[in-house]
Amino acid sequence: MGSSDRPSILGRSVPAEVSIYEVGPRDGLQNESAVVPTEGKLKLIGALADAGLKRIEVTSFVSPKWIPPLADSREVASSLEARPGVVWSALVPNAKGLEGAVAARMEEVAVFMSASETHNKKNINKTIEETFAAFAEVIGPARDAGMRVRGYVSVVWGCPYEGAVDPLRAREVADTLLQMGCYQVSLGDTIGVGTPGQTERIMGAMLEEIPAEKLALHFHDTRGTALANALVGLAYGITTLDASVGGLGGCPYAPGASGNLATEDLVYMLDGLGVRHGVDLEKLVAAGELAQELVGHELPGRYLKAHLGARLKKGSA
Amino acid sequence: MGSSDRPSILGRSVPAEVSIYEVGPRDGLQNESAVVPTEGKLKLIGALADAGLKRIEVTSFVSPKWIPPLADSREVASSLEARPGVVWSALVPNAKGLEGAVAARMEEVAVFMSASETHNKKNINKTIEETFAAFAEVIGPARDAGMRVRGYVSVVWGCPYEGAVDPLRAREVADTLLQMGCYQVSLGDTIGVGTPGQTERIMGAMLEEIPAEKLALHFHDTRGTALANALVGLAYGITTLDASVGGLGGCPYAPGASGNLATEDLVYMLDGLGVRHGVDLEKLVAAGELAQELVGHELPGRYLKAHLGARLKKGSA
Repeated sequence: MGSSDRPSILGRSVPAEVSIYEVGPRDGLQNESAVVPTEGKLKLIGALADAGLKRIEVTSFVSPKWIPPLADSREVASSLEARPGVVWSALVPNAKGLEGAVAARMEEVAVFMSASETHNKKNINKTIEETFAAFAEVIGPARDAGMRVRGYVSVVWGCPYEGAVDPLRAREVADTLLQMGCYQVSLGDTIGVGTPGQTERIMGAMLEEIPAEKLALHFHDTRGTALANALVGLAYGITTLDASVGGLGGCPYAPGASGNLATEDLVYMLDGLGVRHGVDLEKLVAAGELAQELVGHELPGRYLKAHLGARLKKGSA
Repeated sequence: MGSSDRPSILGRSVPAEVSIYEVGPRDGLQNESAVVPTEGKLKLIGALADAGLKRIEVTSFVSPKWIPPLADSREVASSLEARPGVVWSALVPNAKGLEGAVAARMEEVAVFMSASETHNKKNINKTIEETFAAFAEVIGPARDAGMRVRGYVSVVWGCPYEGAVDPLRAREVADTLLQMGCYQVSLGDTIGVGTPGQTERIMGAMLEEIPAEKLALHFHDTRGTALANALVGLAYGITTLDASVGGLGGCPYAPGASGNLATEDLVYMLDGLGVRHGVDLEKLVAAGELAQELVGHELPGRYLKAHLGARLKKGSA
């Protein structure tokens, strides 16, 4: 086959294969008001793995007081059976959270902080420097326990308190996390303000210092720009994209809902580009339908809505 | 200013200025189940012009039996007062429709057909060749009456009956409409199946024969890809994009709703790229809020939802 068969956009090649990091059971459910029973969570996680997703963030080992919908993190994590080629991951805010992940024998954990001082302070009650110090007690021990550690850097595209965020400052934070032992850092547009031109500038700044394969992108579709931003990321060689089944976590009925990029929308665009991802879109829609039932309302993902709507229409015709 | 200040994406320059062709009052309301009273329509059209939109499709001169929500087309069109720099346009399916547009002294009319034989037959009950013959009785007389004529070509990205559509066939249809006297042809992804890679292939085929300024793009956000597709179109030099306030016409509660690209989402992305468009986003949101009230349900546009949600949140805090 000639080079014209390699996936590209606007004259730039995009990766032939990408990895989707599914955050629905954690980032999604964490932002839903409904508390899904443990059994429902396990069913959802199973359905996501059945759809071919290989990296799934299943819960967060934070204090139940902070995030009541994920209060059953230990039960969820310890109930998961190993699946060949599938990595279960969990968010851990601190050394205590890590204990839970170790007890549940997670293969991977993730730490999270912000690119802006104010958001970091409001979100985890530490300065950025204090956060690095605290992570030293998590990243090293996690690796010693045989786990991979992923890092999240929030509000890279904009901070609700500080506004614009300097991409060089965000890069410094990401770079420090990599140097501390994270295998990958996921850059987040936490409040969904990013636009493609901005994504291009951020990619340019990041890739001067950090190889593309060490980065993931985590977009929220709050203003409809998530897929366009993801497309720009792909053109810069990014090979991991975070997404949430059905856009779980972006409840359309909640004021100011932030809305994760829906996994189905991403898969649909990747299919159109000819980029491999290993996910079965039909089975993913089934997982999305299950997620809707579990949270008790329609999810915002566009592809899911169109697909389920078309099925309804057929059924009624 | 250096060349680095010119808007670009992925190394390709995009137009410094684009024109947004607003289809909410026509394509939007036509697909809503609610019938908005004439007075409400006039208020909405006024609010869109207040927001800075210069090209607004206000109604469709079709038989009231076909499209009950637009049965008041004559009343709407004849009630509109001229505004400096603003062009009101109306859809006309045939010579009879043109009479209504002439009587209402429209400056512009639009004709519509499909790139696929089956969709054309199902939609307007004519073959493509028969449609050209019928348009000969509309385009010439409309121009003789001093009107500009716009053409729409539907289902260019895919047909609900035939599936894939040959871009060369779509180009032939578009080219014929231009040769017949249309000043611009809007290429539609009527069922919202388009992806960026496909948009690139369609643009490549079109621009071999047709200058970019003769084309407009009309995306539906059914599967979330509208903005990413629009971004690709911009990189190919397209200077007119169709959009619908709030995504009007894509009712989230209607099964299989097709969902126009929301004007606010487009404006937000253009702002991020530094592309001028002349629209005031705050005023556009006000028009979107009005549109929601008129149709009696929440509209699917993401930016609108985020903006109104944030306002609610502030109000309740």
